[in-house]
Amino acid sequence: MSVILGIDPGTHVAGFGVIQTDQLGALEHRDHGVILMNRRDSFADRLHLFYEQLEELFKVHQPDVVVVEDIFVGKNIQSAFRLGHLRGLCLQLAAKYQCQVVEYAAKKVKKVVTGHGGAEKDHVRLVVLNLLGIRSQHLNDATDALALSICHVRQRTSERLLQNQLGKELL
Amino acid sequence: MSVILGIDPGTHVAGFGVIQTDQLGALEHRDHGVILMNRRDSFADRLHLFYEQLEELFKVHQPDVVVVEDIFVGKNIQSAFRLGHLRGLCLQLAAKYQCQVVEYAAKKVKKVVTGHGGAEKDHVRLVVLNLLGIRSQHLNDATDALALSICHVRQRTSERLLQNQLGKELL
Repeated sequence: MSVILGIDPGTHVAGFGVIQTDQLGALEHRDHGVILMNRRDSFADRLHLFYEQLEELFKVHQPDVVVVEDIFVGKNIQSAFRLGHLRGLCLQLAAKYQCQVVEYAAKKVKKVVTGHGGAEKDHVRLVVLNLLGIRSQHLNDATDALALSICHVRQRTSERLLQNQLGKELL
Repeated sequence: MSVILGIDPGTHVAGFGVIQTDQLGALEHRDHGVILMNRRDSFADRLHLFYEQLEELFKVHQPDVVVVEDIFVGKNIQSAFRLGHLRGLCLQLAAKYQCQVVEYAAKKVKKVVTGHGGAEKDHVRLVVLNLLGIRSQHLNDATDALALSICHVRQRTSERLLQNQLGKELL
């Protein structure tokens, strides 16, 4: 059994999604939610609040793997720079709690989860709800985080299947 | 008496400089040095090492003010994005230890410390050594961090003098 924590950091709202899986790639929902930061607080105070709440999730769920988005710094440079600050906290906590860190590009996540790299947010949400067998009206800001976790499980499972297949062919 | 911690984060070498000051703006050197990260370690592990060593400095020196460079994200976007990760850790620790956070642009620091915004690194180093009355052959990577601390003290002192002057004129 392994526990996957997907994190979708943002400077005001950060989403998280925790699932567990087994050797066969079963998806079991454990937790999801958001960390809300007050826009009136200083950036440093928001980072601290994010850090404290995120560390609590590491303590409670003891994840084996942390999945974050592999950000392409393209158009919105200033926002990517600020996002880097929160991402740094995610990676430091992952190292502190000895988790493996995995990164996927947003397009890859959509492709693996829905089969379509350009899927709309609502489409991703419906697939995530369906795959995890949950009903939640407040999934929105945690959708991407759960999708990151699911993407990782599927990716690892298909890699494992491929390795097994190759192993058999070599015999 | 107040303690100022200047931090100059880098993904391999990070410099720090601690000085203390009084109401009159005296500069007293307390500590300076570097945090070295192993290039062979993962980025997450390097962030964790940086965090642990930086937190130690907060515990030892109990700074009142943390000074970091106000980064202009211009040419080197990817490097600024990565630097943001370390900067996030600096700001989170500053908030955790209830320090004031102050940012100055590199040009401003050079201007305030040496009188010339385009000063060369060697020039800055000599002025820093002279102002703090220290001799160090290994100052290089901590120069900018000490310069950040000095810049803040000078800036605050000149603001205070200006306020006093204005106060007198209004009487």
